[in-house]
Order: sequence, then structure tokens, then C-alpha cells
Amino acid sequence: MTYCVALRVEEGLVLCADTRTNAGVDNISVFSKLHVIEKPGERMIAIMCAGNLAVTQAVITRVTEGIGETGEEGPDSLHTVPSMFEAARLVGKAVRSVREEDAPSLSQENVAFDASFLVAGQIAGRRLRLFQVYSAGNYIEATADTPYLQIGEHKYGKPILDRVAKYDTPVEDAVKLALISMDSTLRSNLSVGMPIDLMTYRKDALHVEMRRRISEDDPYFRMIRERWSEALRQAYRDLPGPNAPLDAPKPSGGGRLFGP
Amino acid sequence: MTYCVALRVEEGLVLCADTRTNAGVDNISVFSKLHVIEKPGERMIAIMCAGNLAVTQAVITRVTEGIGETGEEGPDSLHTVPSMFEAARLVGKAVRSVREEDAPSLSQENVAFDASFLVAGQIAGRRLRLFQVYSAGNYIEATADTPYLQIGEHKYGKPILDRVAKYDTPVEDAVKLALISMDSTLRSNLSVGMPIDLMTYRKDALHVEMRRRISEDDPYFRMIRERWSEALRQAYRDLPGPNAPLDAPKPSGGGRLFGP
Repeated sequence: MTYCVALRVEEGLVLCADTRTNAGVDNISVFSKLHVIEKPGERMIAIMCAGNLAVTQAVITRVTEGIGETGEEGPDSLHTVPSMFEAARLVGKAVRSVREEDAPSLSQENVAFDASFLVAGQIAGRRLRLFQVYSAGNYIEATADTPYLQIGEHKYGKPILDRVAKYDTPVEDAVKLALISMDSTLRSNLSVGMPIDLMTYRKDALHVEMRRRISEDDPYFRMIRERWSEALRQAYRDLPGPNAPLDAPKPSGGGRLFGP
Repeated sequence: MTYCVALRVEEGLVLCADTRTNAGVDNISVFSKLHVIEKPGERMIAIMCAGNLAVTQAVITRVTEGIGETGEEGPDSLHTVPSMFEAARLVGKAVRSVREEDAPSLSQENVAFDASFLVAGQIAGRRLRLFQVYSAGNYIEATADTPYLQIGEHKYGKPILDRVAKYDTPVEDAVKLALISMDSTLRSNLSVGMPIDLMTYRKDALHVEMRRRISEDDPYFRMIRERWSEALRQAYRDLPGPNAPLDAPKPSGGGRLFGP
């Protein structure tokens, strides 16, 4: 399994991915799921992937090395696409071409063709955008209403994003959110594992702001984990119990859960 | 879909279930998923269910009306079983008998046989216990190490339980936890819906302590939802940003996530 989350906020991007791949519980490895195509000042495209590793690696190779007819400028690749929309489209095209090649053999082994991608970044003069590409090769874009996208094991880490992530969340706060969301997932699903790849990008910078691999003993991540757990415990202790009087006027029958 | 959660803490039990059933997104109804068999002073057995409604209703009918040979004391039912272990076993037996009857026809319609149950309670002179019965009719028991069990859409509501639920959590606090866990699920999965059934039981009381249907406008639940959301937002705002100095001594390279 995998967990990748991307926040596309007003100020920029925060991307976070775990690095565990597994074939059963007795065969786990570390693979980076965050890939960056960067030409400072001209383009910064990041791509995160979830699903069958052979499929996602084949897709990444095709979109970085190029697919399609070799024209004057060489084959289409993430190094040459003119916009983020075309980047998402190219990833979708690569997924479809890998499916054409691999799906029949995978199906003979009863393995589902499974791959999804988050494609985020900016090309000079164009908009900063974040897309999710499905295994069918189609795609959706994050918007100000829902400024984040997730792939892989998304459920455990979603409640905190649903409650807190906003389009005007600063990048620093979005980093905290991504790490909390990742921590909740790490705790509940063994097939999502450390280390974590974390990256930030500021709108119009056209280069990666920060990219970092976070291991178990990373002091910032450890602090976030510990303080967040403690803050949750404190927050729930501070909530009035079901027998406490409520501030608000009670409708008849309301207010207390226990007793008369 | 469904979400049911049960906490079996030192002081007693807290059970919480949503009431939504759906066949697709365009056919939703309200059905109670919490059933109580109570003979005050002698037994209190509560059962919550998730899965195919026809299957779970058939199981509930069998375990309340009785299955098996009619002996001197009538057929086995939750009104007569001598222990909670036998209660879980009886539910498992009922699941298997419904499967025998319904599974072939369900399979003709490509509908999976899907049903799971939480069976909790106490019989005079015996231990308070909480079991989960699977669709295969086998079962597991909650222990002091993991004092809660969930059925249905369990992922969204699990992180808060993983972080906070302990065997020595008081019943009042376990009520808060169950409601927070339910709220996280309600927000993220449309097929889990209000109203909520909530119940508490104190060890050795042999009668229900509190049973309540909580609707959208319940002032206590609304207060929990609002304050919890606000507390989470505050807690994450209070976390130091990735550029803040850390209290702990930093290993080389550690401490700050962003430059220099």
C-alpha cells in the first residue's frame, strides 16, 4: 500500500509520500514515490504514485524519457510539455500505453492493473496546478474548494484534512497538516511506512523550495507526532462530559445524555 | 454502509451506531443497528450489526427468537444463553444458518454475503465481554490492550481511537471518544448517517445505564462536533512550524525542514 497527499494552497504546494512497497506482509521494501522534474526558472513538476510498482515505474520512465512520435523537439515528456494540463494528459497517456502492454499478462495472474498519480507543479508563465490521474488515464484537478488530493490508503489521514485544510492555509501550516495526516495513516496501516518524502514549492518560484527525506528519528517529525497526540488527548479531556451543563439553552429533553 | 463502534473499558461499555442503510446513493433509509436484550438484574446483551440488511435482520430475528432444537428451556436465544461467550457463539451460528439459506441466491445476483456484528454485555455472575462476529460466524474478543472494536466503515474513525482509547478510560470519556469517532466518519462517508444510537452500560449493573437516539439538533452532539473541530484547528495552529527552533538538541542536519 501507499499513502501520498498533496495540498495545493494559495501560496504553493506541499507534497508528502511514504516509501513502503509491499508484496504481502513478508516482503517490504523502500522505494521513493515522489519524483521531481525540475529546470529552475522554467519548470518544476512533481509526480507521486501509488499502485502496482512495475506499472508506476513504467509510467514514470515513459513520462520522463518521453513517449510518442519523435518530432522536432523530441518525444513528449515532462521535460517538454508546455503546461501542467498537458503534463497530466501525458501521464494519463503513459498509463494507457502501459495498460495496453501489461494488462493482459497481469490479468492472467489475477493481478489488477492498479496505478494512480498526483501530478503537481508549474511551468513558466502558466498556472500552478495539481492533478490526480486515475488508472484509466483520466484526471481531475484540485480546486480552492478542495485544495488537497490523496492516493493510496487515503481514509485514515482524511478527517484532519477535511476539518482543517483550506485554500488560504499557509505552506508552513500545510506541512504540519500533511505530516499529521501521514502520521495517522502510519499508525493505522502497517503497509504504509517510514521514511517519508516531503516537498514544498512556492507559487511562481519555478524551483523546489524544500525537499527532504524524513526518517523515524527526525526531530521535527517526532515532535509533531508527540505534540499532536498530546494535543488530541488534551482536547478530548477538555470537552465537557455528557453530564456537564451546556452553555446553550436546552430544548426540552436535550442537554444531558445521562440521568434525569 | 454503516459505522458501529464499541468500547469495553474497565468501568463498562459504550456503544455507538449510525442508522443509515443504503442501496446505492439514491435509496437511503433509517434503520436501527443497535438491539438490546435486557432482563434487569439478570442480563444485558447489546448487539450492533453491519452489512446486508436482509442478512442482519434475519440473524437478529434468529438470535432473539431462538434457533436450534427446542429443549426443556426452549430453543437457544440471547434471552437464554448462559454466558457472553455463548452469546457470541449463538450469533455466529445464526450467521452460518442464514448463509446456508441465502448465500446461493445472493451469489446468483452477484451480491456478496456480508454481515458482521458486535455483541457486548453481561450475564449475572459472569464477566462483561465484547465480541466481534464475522460473516464466517467466527469471532474475536476485545481485550485491555485493544479495548474497542469497530464494524462497517471503520477507517475514518480509527485514528482518534488508536491515539486515545485506553482500558482505564472512564465511561463518560469513552462517550466523547465514540461521538468524535462517529463524527469523523459522518463527515467523510455519506453512506454513514444521522441519527446516531448511543448506549452506555456500567459493569455489574445488569441493566442499560443510558440509551439515546441523537439527532442533528442534539445540543450535546453539536457542541462536541463544534468544539472538537475548533480544538483540532487550535492544536494544529499551536504546533511549531517547520522553521521554528526545537526544544530538543538537534542531531546534525535535523531540526529545521526549510533552508539554509
